[in-house]
Amino acid sequence: MQKTLIVDALNAETAQDAVQICGWARTRRDLGTCSFVEVNDGSCLANMQCVVDHGTDAYASLGSAGVGAALSVTGALTPSPGKDQKWEVRAEKIRVLGHADPETYPLQKKRHSDEFLRGIAHLRMRTNKYGAAFRIRSQAAWAVHEFFRERHFVWVHTPVLTGSDCEGAGEMFRVTTLPPGEENAGKDFFTRNCYLTVSGQLEAEALAMGLGRVYTFGPAFRAENSNTPRHAAEFWMVEPEMAFADIMDCMELGEGLIRHVVERVLEHCEADLRLFDNFVDKDLLIRLRAMLEKPFARVTYAEAVRLLESSDKSFVFPVVFGMDLQTEHERYLAEEHFQQPVIVYDYPREVKPFYMRCNNDNETVAAMDILAPRIGELVGGSQREERLDVLTQRLQETGKDPDDYWWYTDLRRFGSAPHAGFGLGFERLLMLLTGIANIRDVIPFPRTPGSLDF
Amino acid sequence: MQKTLIVDALNAETAQDAVQICGWARTRRDLGTCSFVEVNDGSCLANMQCVVDHGTDAYASLGSAGVGAALSVTGALTPSPGKDQKWEVRAEKIRVLGHADPETYPLQKKRHSDEFLRGIAHLRMRTNKYGAAFRIRSQAAWAVHEFFRERHFVWVHTPVLTGSDCEGAGEMFRVTTLPPGEENAGKDFFTRNCYLTVSGQLEAEALAMGLGRVYTFGPAFRAENSNTPRHAAEFWMVEPEMAFADIMDCMELGEGLIRHVVERVLEHCEADLRLFDNFVDKDLLIRLRAMLEKPFARVTYAEAVRLLESSDKSFVFPVVFGMDLQTEHERYLAEEHFQQPVIVYDYPREVKPFYMRCNNDNETVAAMDILAPRIGELVGGSQREERLDVLTQRLQETGKDPDDYWWYTDLRRFGSAPHAGFGLGFERLLMLLTGIANIRDVIPFPRTPGSLDF
Repeated sequence: MQKTLIVDALNAETAQDAVQICGWARTRRDLGTCSFVEVNDGSCLANMQCVVDHGTDAYASLGSAGVGAALSVTGALTPSPGKDQKWEVRAEKIRVLGHADPETYPLQKKRHSDEFLRGIAHLRMRTNKYGAAFRIRSQAAWAVHEFFRERHFVWVHTPVLTGSDCEGAGEMFRVTTLPPGEENAGKDFFTRNCYLTVSGQLEAEALAMGLGRVYTFGPAFRAENSNTPRHAAEFWMVEPEMAFADIMDCMELGEGLIRHVVERVLEHCEADLRLFDNFVDKDLLIRLRAMLEKPFARVTYAEAVRLLESSDKSFVFPVVFGMDLQTEHERYLAEEHFQQPVIVYDYPREVKPFYMRCNNDNETVAAMDILAPRIGELVGGSQREERLDVLTQRLQETGKDPDDYWWYTDLRRFGSAPHAGFGLGFERLLMLLTGIANIRDVIPFPRTPGSLDF
Repeated sequence: MQKTLIVDALNAETAQDAVQICGWARTRRDLGTCSFVEVNDGSCLANMQCVVDHGTDAYASLGSAGVGAALSVTGALTPSPGKDQKWEVRAEKIRVLGHADPETYPLQKKRHSDEFLRGIAHLRMRTNKYGAAFRIRSQAAWAVHEFFRERHFVWVHTPVLTGSDCEGAGEMFRVTTLPPGEENAGKDFFTRNCYLTVSGQLEAEALAMGLGRVYTFGPAFRAENSNTPRHAAEFWMVEPEMAFADIMDCMELGEGLIRHVVERVLEHCEADLRLFDNFVDKDLLIRLRAMLEKPFARVTYAEAVRLLESSDKSFVFPVVFGMDLQTEHERYLAEEHFQQPVIVYDYPREVKPFYMRCNNDNETVAAMDILAPRIGELVGGSQREERLDVLTQRLQETGKDPDDYWWYTDLRRFGSAPHAGFGLGFERLLMLLTGIANIRDVIPFPRTPGSLDF
């Protein structure tokens, strides 16, 4: 017999004489003449209630199997008298595929702390909360692809292994095939030093200069030794790059992407989101729906600094024109002042990387960040410097050797065109979507300093 | 004015008084009273022919701009008298956004060798061939997601950074934040040795044991020091994992995935595929269409060995029951004997990894590979060993410490269930789809021994 996924069985139009479902027992209640086993197979948040009459073969086969056991249940799909579900399965045949000893199985039915569950990351996807988180993650990822596909963007795969360092940040992982202690890079796999990418942007720019509109969606790495709820050493980034586009197009694209993903997740993950709204973040659904109701706020960096200066808030980092915005500033703007996502643009040139396009004021660059309540920076992007002379000068100003960037400057030497793009931290978007406060809980197996289990 | 993508302009239903297109000049012909400039923006293989009358402002603005220049062209979209295109743009206004000096621009109009183009990987996406290859790559990647989504699989992101070694292969890259020469792993970022993953399978199994059906689609790494046209140090893999599934389900899923992607690429990338059919691989379209016409062949490993033994072919590696199939054997089976993709299953236990399920014959495991003409192994998968005692014994037999696999064996300790999955090398699939013979040419910026440019 063909197995039926629980999501399909629960959405059935009519009763069925015989279905086979497989999944894991989430609860078992033994009453007078029958037992109720709630079975979940991960296809949706809801369980299938299986009713096992005492004295039947099915009951004998069920034996002592309890919470966590893997079961195959065959029987009639019939309307459920219970109020929580439309259908239930009247078990006729049960096979226990794998037991879970109640003495040692860590996921008995009770609520566990996030911290405890991180220690059993190989089992936590069996809980309602993490099952929901990872289904939402998948739906959001699909929505990212959908958004770009509708706009003729080409999904490109830029390399993880790189010989260069995009942002000039020193915090990179080094990759080698030499044994520990050996230091002759000439003998290494690539006969030179190799690192894990912090961004696919530079390569994405090259691709955009031929394919027009591209985006990357893949892992990126930062070796920052900081233990915060918002940073992981390995995370996924979305990085679109558009030829023939300026900073305004870039803002529109970033806002459009976020709205599209929020909309699709609201549409497709209703039950999973309700779990987070009930148990994790009471205002989640209100906040997500409100995001769709009006355009994001937009202010220049200069205006943002004036708003921060005139606020009553005392900040750890003093507010002064020319500073980079800190998380406390970003959150004040989005959470307290605007109470919605806000796009800040035209940042001082000194706090931004060499590749951002210099504005005519000689003071700012055509950069834009999208800041969200509770998250801070969700998107960071810019129009790129397409003028060879200005780019070369900026490389020199920031202490870089233009020769190391020969292929990147080539893009300005041959058929250069205005172009723009941004990076969106996918895990930050998931934190926005679920209300989960720690990045470790939106990644199945998170990597942070000192933490490489599983 | 809103810019129009060339793919949209070429598909227009009606003429339009004014459109603005942006792109790069692919050719320029100056005839008696007008110039013809073919402009490409990467949105499709086809160019937009722009007609520039001599003596106009547009002609003056065009100046000497030639092949490779980035242009913005505004004008009427009118029916083209030429036979190659339905529409052309009568240029009224032209802006040259970036020149390309004909003396130094490497992509003048003529055919270049693949090898030459690998040396300018940052520019080769501007050619017809590589533009087409990367559009097909994007379409195929979309089709992968589409296939799994239709079947309720959850896209999961398994870590690239790992402390363990899935297949017991020694060929892994090591990742560190220590300076070269330093060897104290205790001082390293993760306070232990860290590697780049060769497969997300073990983690995907953990996810399948909660979410039911999952797949990964991300980069994987092999530090094999071999320069072949079929191996890269960094490549993308698709790895589905299904709970409550056996080896037959696994074969069906693998075959279904390949057929779906071929079908969708035939449907959506007609012009791009025709380029490869014309210039790269004369039988490409015939072969792809034939793949959809009948089911893949299926033979056991034992049958495959008999077929190889009874062939007239002389092989470098001698054919004997118990050997692992080599590429020459795989290609003989798929290309010459079956002349279509073939699934070989039930391999000898000795040539396969510890996690594959032992068959009752005590000699073979429930493994399956899908072999394709010209490619060899495209998919490798198996039913996984779900029995704790057998798995533990297999770990010991293959020289591994079960304690190192504590979380992986936990999956068999608590609610174990039959499950199966496979890995598909995405670049191999692209070689099948395009006829491109070298893996370096289906990856925008390939990584191979000694080669880390861009």
